[in-house]
Amino acid sequence: MTPSADAIVVGGGVIGKSVALALAERGAKVELFDASEGSEARRPATRAAAGILGAQMEAQADEPLARLCLESRARFEAFAKRIEAKSGRAVEYRASGVIVSAFDDASLEKLEGECAWQKKADLKLEKLDRAALRELEPELAEDAVGAIRFVDDARVDPRALLDALDQAIRAAGVTIRSARVRRILRDGATALGVEDESGARHAKHVVLAAGSWSTLVSETGLAETAVMPARGQMLELRARPGLLRGVVLAPDAYFSPRDDGRILVGSTVELVGFDDRVTAAAARDLLAAAVQRVPALAHASLSDSWAGLRPYTTDELPLIGPGTLDRLIFATGHFRNGVLLAPITAEIVADLIEGKPPAIDVGPFSPSRLARVA
Amino acid sequence: MTPSADAIVVGGGVIGKSVALALAERGAKVELFDASEGSEARRPATRAAAGILGAQMEAQADEPLARLCLESRARFEAFAKRIEAKSGRAVEYRASGVIVSAFDDASLEKLEGECAWQKKADLKLEKLDRAALRELEPELAEDAVGAIRFVDDARVDPRALLDALDQAIRAAGVTIRSARVRRILRDGATALGVEDESGARHAKHVVLAAGSWSTLVSETGLAETAVMPARGQMLELRARPGLLRGVVLAPDAYFSPRDDGRILVGSTVELVGFDDRVTAAAARDLLAAAVQRVPALAHASLSDSWAGLRPYTTDELPLIGPGTLDRLIFATGHFRNGVLLAPITAEIVADLIEGKPPAIDVGPFSPSRLARVA
Repeated sequence: MTPSADAIVVGGGVIGKSVALALAERGAKVELFDASEGSEARRPATRAAAGILGAQMEAQADEPLARLCLESRARFEAFAKRIEAKSGRAVEYRASGVIVSAFDDASLEKLEGECAWQKKADLKLEKLDRAALRELEPELAEDAVGAIRFVDDARVDPRALLDALDQAIRAAGVTIRSARVRRILRDGATALGVEDESGARHAKHVVLAAGSWSTLVSETGLAETAVMPARGQMLELRARPGLLRGVVLAPDAYFSPRDDGRILVGSTVELVGFDDRVTAAAARDLLAAAVQRVPALAHASLSDSWAGLRPYTTDELPLIGPGTLDRLIFATGHFRNGVLLAPITAEIVADLIEGKPPAIDVGPFSPSRLARVA
Repeated sequence: MTPSADAIVVGGGVIGKSVALALAERGAKVELFDASEGSEARRPATRAAAGILGAQMEAQADEPLARLCLESRARFEAFAKRIEAKSGRAVEYRASGVIVSAFDDASLEKLEGECAWQKKADLKLEKLDRAALRELEPELAEDAVGAIRFVDDARVDPRALLDALDQAIRAAGVTIRSARVRRILRDGATALGVEDESGARHAKHVVLAAGSWSTLVSETGLAETAVMPARGQMLELRARPGLLRGVVLAPDAYFSPRDDGRILVGSTVELVGFDDRVTAAAARDLLAAAVQRVPALAHASLSDSWAGLRPYTTDELPLIGPGTLDRLIFATGHFRNGVLLAPITAEIVADLIEGKPPAIDVGPFSPSRLARVA
């Protein structure tokens, strides 16, 4: 059996497509399996994401995941521009900054404490008092007492990014197969390819980037609970462009604005299996938070609502690198950081396949920690 | 100029199409102008309605409108069956009854007082105590103290009804023109036809059934404020079929179930012009009411949301009959009762055009009361 490709990538979300692009750019012949279309489509979490590139926003300690996010954020602008150039499509990358707002003094102090390490590490951030916050985001509710502003955090439009990536990988010669991979083909401890509904496909390397559906692929060596779907419900409101200038986090919701006036309001985190419905109670809570934190949104129109299934791991760290099988690389479990982590994940996977040491130590993200117990 | 039709009907909602059907059934050659498709579509309020046939539900006194609603309700089952037979489409007419629920004893007493006249008039209704209400609608919140049940009130699926009507009038030979009528053509005080973007159409009679857009047709003789759009926002939830057995009114929302498990939750009444957006604040309030009054709906999915523009009149009475022009009959301004009043309105208009006295005195609904002051 001659391999039909240098690499097979399993997964049509931002991670799978970014990996495919990186491999193709380095000269590999790549096949990508995308299960996101047709009946019983597995809609990648990317399509439901808010696109907040908040590497500092939630980094409460100097830990490996925070460092990984920072490395990826540092690559994002170039990544976005490359994809735009290759696809001819805009992805709306904006260095908008991210604000984490507080509605009482104790919360503001706590926020400040949590990012003390960032200051020491020379990461840029600003503490905004009430007046400075009002100046920057005048539509935020009057009871906001202040905020921390992460100047270098940014935003992107995830659907536009995914569509542009799709164009870019096609242009780069990646073959896209609209099919579900059922299992990894192997010879002992070596992966040989994959099997879908219509048969076997062989490749020198396999990359598993199937997000929430990763453990539905058999023979990966992963425990059944290694990656679980975590539902995130989101609302889309339409307001006047510029109502919010940047991304805003409030205690009970976040707000991710788009240039055209849309504001994405999210998001829940619910372990409810593969149920991607929007519920009445969650929509009520998000709308209540939206109107409370940004009163002008009362008159915004509710233009859409959806839910995505983020690939959750119990330690909330992604799976990046080899597991128990030779020639099978994991790139999954990115939970709430899939969009942000796409550039660094793609680079790491491409390095590993080329046999080069990645720029980052991937030890903490080793899939072996979540291997099936034999 | 020879008239091209016996009657021109202006309006593609449930009133216009019901009138067209009645006229065609009596042998008239009918042209119907429907502005509900294409760019800048005027979506008839019918498509946004909940389909509650609540003739008794809101009849707080023995007044002409209540009597008109009762007459129309009495005709509805036969009307629905006729349309189903002619179109081959189901319209989901259900004699489900309507419950008006109360959450404190004073409210329940007030409700009872308001329908005292109905008892005297031999209209069917039941007072349900807490236990009886629980028996009938076990998913209603536990703090419901009781309800009045209007046994003969019913429900229908308005979109299915409108689609079936569309089929039925085509089958009956009605010509449908997808165009907006700009003005009534007249010779002195006599209507001769209508003018749309492409020219003039003549007919022996003209029926104006343009709902919220009625006063945008010029030369009708109506005052500019005779009919105004009143926005009604609505949410569609998906729950298990049978969660609610019938239509339920609560103090802050109503619930109109469909056989397939959908529950329509409405509705606001807002005089905001031709703005048919769903707003964040109204959606929040409807969702909060839904979850409070029917707690199991917390887990229902929010599957759709929309707003409709009901044709409101300041005295909340419809305009039925001739106005200041000969050969122009009005059938508009039905506000929240368009679906319910379709059968009787169609019958009255067809009688008037045939020169027969209608079964009901239409004096109280005379369009002349809202005529333009010269």
